Amino acid sequence: MSLAVDNNGAQPLPESLIATLTELLGERFTMSNSVREHHGKGEAYHTAALPDGVAYGNSTDEVSAIVKACAAHGTPVIPYGTGTALEGHTLALRGGISLDVSGMDQVIRVSPEDMDCTVQAGVTRNQLNEYLRDTGLFFPVDPGADASLGGMSATRASGTTTVRYGAMRENVLALTVVLADGRVIQTARRARKSSAGYDLTRLFVGSEGTLGVITEVTLRLFGIPEATQAAVCSFPDLESAVNTVITVVQCGIPIARCELLDKTGMKMICDYGKLDDYTIGDTLFMEFHGSEAGVTEQAAQVQAIAADYGAGDFKWASKPEDRTKLWEARHNGHYAILATAKPGQNVMATDVCVPVSRLAECILATKEDLEQSGLVSPFVGHAGDGNFHMSIIANYDDEAENKLAHDIHDRLVHRAQDMEGTCTGEHGIGSGKIDYLEEELGGAVDVMRAVKRALDPDNIMNPGKILRL
Amino acid sequence: MSLAVDNNGAQPLPESLIATLTELLGERFTMSNSVREHHGKGEAYHTAALPDGVAYGNSTDEVSAIVKACAAHGTPVIPYGTGTALEGHTLALRGGISLDVSGMDQVIRVSPEDMDCTVQAGVTRNQLNEYLRDTGLFFPVDPGADASLGGMSATRASGTTTVRYGAMRENVLALTVVLADGRVIQTARRARKSSAGYDLTRLFVGSEGTLGVITEVTLRLFGIPEATQAAVCSFPDLESAVNTVITVVQCGIPIARCELLDKTGMKMICDYGKLDDYTIGDTLFMEFHGSEAGVTEQAAQVQAIAADYGAGDFKWASKPEDRTKLWEARHNGHYAILATAKPGQNVMATDVCVPVSRLAECILATKEDLEQSGLVSPFVGHAGDGNFHMSIIANYDDEAENKLAHDIHDRLVHRAQDMEGTCTGEHGIGSGKIDYLEEELGGAVDVMRAVKRALDPDNIMNPGKILRL
Repeated sequence: MSLAVDNNGAQPLPESLIATLTELLGERFTMSNSVREHHGKGEAYHTAALPDGVAYGNSTDEVSAIVKACAAHGTPVIPYGTGTALEGHTLALRGGISLDVSGMDQVIRVSPEDMDCTVQAGVTRNQLNEYLRDTGLFFPVDPGADASLGGMSATRASGTTTVRYGAMRENVLALTVVLADGRVIQTARRARKSSAGYDLTRLFVGSEGTLGVITEVTLRLFGIPEATQAAVCSFPDLESAVNTVITVVQCGIPIARCELLDKTGMKMICDYGKLDDYTIGDTLFMEFHGSEAGVTEQAAQVQAIAADYGAGDFKWASKPEDRTKLWEARHNGHYAILATAKPGQNVMATDVCVPVSRLAECILATKEDLEQSGLVSPFVGHAGDGNFHMSIIANYDDEAENKLAHDIHDRLVHRAQDMEGTCTGEHGIGSGKIDYLEEELGGAVDVMRAVKRALDPDNIMNPGKILRL
Repeated sequence: MSLAVDNNGAQPLPESLIATLTELLGERFTMSNSVREHHGKGEAYHTAALPDGVAYGNSTDEVSAIVKACAAHGTPVIPYGTGTALEGHTLALRGGISLDVSGMDQVIRVSPEDMDCTVQAGVTRNQLNEYLRDTGLFFPVDPGADASLGGMSATRASGTTTVRYGAMRENVLALTVVLADGRVIQTARRARKSSAGYDLTRLFVGSEGTLGVITEVTLRLFGIPEATQAAVCSFPDLESAVNTVITVVQCGIPIARCELLDKTGMKMICDYGKLDDYTIGDTLFMEFHGSEAGVTEQAAQVQAIAADYGAGDFKWASKPEDRTKLWEARHNGHYAILATAKPGQNVMATDVCVPVSRLAECILATKEDLEQSGLVSPFVGHAGDGNFHMSIIANYDDEAENKLAHDIHDRLVHRAQDMEGTCTGEHGIGSGKIDYLEEELGGAVDVMRAVKRALDPDNIMNPGKILRL
């Protein structure tokens, strides 16, 4: 892994800012190396970039005071939740303060009748679902990692259940945001829908910390389904699996999850999770939510459609412990892949999303490209959304291999864009996809720049992410 | 009705702009009184405000050329679709050009496999559904009026099916927008989800023509359900009806529509639609979409829940012609109400939305307020969303009666806001709710203002709507 960049040529922290933050936060402001290193590291292929200090804000008021202090000195502020972002969002590319909101871990309010809740930004999705356990409600968005709900909002996360329940875009009702000058706003009321002015909620959802710090999130909740059933089924090829998904969605069958794994990926997770009773092939992992009768009907319909596309047997998991085992295997995909890596190797996650009719074509062309390179990667897709990930295994410290992997990624992104798709379905732009965003949306990026300049004229909020100003 | 305001003290149109638009559009640019009057009128309680001219743009390029010409002279541009907006969005409060896109009536593309389509902004929802008839797909958002899809995007419309299919917010995938200086942008690719930068799609959805002119809309589509069943059921009181809806939604029953009508409203539509076999009481109009078995199950579940809350018999309508009759009656609510008005009387539509747990309370308190005034209004609610409308019947030319009605509205909005609700669930801010927006979102409106100034520095796009600059 490349050496970390410390401070990156930025101004050192002003003494008066250090004094202000120390007075405000006591030990919750630190410049210790280990804490800075923890907050400034990214994924394998992102060079770490350390903040000059880390400030732990435990309330909206504290976050506001921290931002105000930084703004007074033009010091960058990098919001930090659980550090699970995949596009280097938390790297301090221009030094500054990593603003860690993980201490904001309170569920503020749950309204079962309205099926919504408000949480502090540091609450993770698993913490929330644990809290909700006795209410009969759950929060469905599931990006895999146990990310903070503030961070999931900031990256417009989605994941395995989007095909049924929507992404963060659809499930955030309102946000409390600390702006770049420390002002605090509430983007919307708690009403389930509203036409009251510009949709600031969705402007901040996906803004990756570049417009402000999200401190509270109001979320839609859903009733825990009466019945849940999961199934795994292998197909003769990727195209048959994708066509099954297209037909299922067209028929209006409200499938809750339908995850695509190619043969390589299936082998990795079966080896890692010691699942020895599954066929190693191009596979769909599915889940059905509904009433007992509804789930039975959905499952039968899907099975019939899959059979038309030559699917093998369905392996059912209706008992909670079997389902948990299954989805743990799927969620542990990242570790399963890492487990196959040799010393010095690491993985690069890709994240294109295309219209679902082009999904099989996009994957197959990319597979061919990959095979020619000699590198290895599984393919994992949120098939109902047309979104898929590679995890390209390579030695990223080896220049040639690094280039090989990045060239594959480059061609993948352009392939997806040529298919009217996007360079990122759910991970965000971060610092690595700024040029791709320009290629993808052209003049629209000028509008984003205008918005950024209007809300953060001094460019202190997570500078170097999403946009080149 | 109050007299129309013509030009409103604004500068007359510059001769050179008239020449440019005439050269560009020929007879599709007009300054005729009748056309200006048609484009500058609002609802009963909005005083008409005439544009100085009307320009019919038939393509994105033409719209861009029109906006550029207006921008060169600082002349206001007021986008116009079908003129069905309810908050005076099309009034030319500062004169200028009404930019009519009704001629942009082409369905550009339908992709059945991806379940999406792209239409020009002037295509209405009924036109689109007519076009889709043979594809097995439909576009669900149904605000009642046969509005243009550009206009529905611009006001963030929703309506009767939102509880199941979402509002325009959820169903617009991408927009083509002409900015205030005539530049053309595409807000997103056609991927079903994306984390590529700020969510400009949703910034323009609900921007009411104040940030640019929407010229093309990419929309999600849905499969026409295998089975549909509608039912009408009366309840002992409003609270029982609302509690039924809350329970239905909590149980995860995917009800497609659940419309609340109070006794007054039910009598009006039954009289108008000659529906003589319904109980005149507080009523739910419901619709179920799904498989044959699914619809039967949903209906049985809802019937059981309703019975717990003391509901009367269900009247079923599973034949298409019966359903059409039913929903026509509901959709003709506005005309049914007008039919009860005496000469000189008109109606004012209200549009608050509250957390659904407060819906019954909000309606009941407002009913009491209304009764004390002596005025009459039905209550019609999109109950699953917590959104309801009054149509206050009054003589708005009578100063005392006008004040009486507006005072009721004022107290209604504050009541809803006190319940964490909003002054507008789906009609928008227009010019009449600018102060309510300030009260509702406070400092967030400053952020909206900053965005507006950044994207339309000369304030030519539909000035006087949403924000006071």
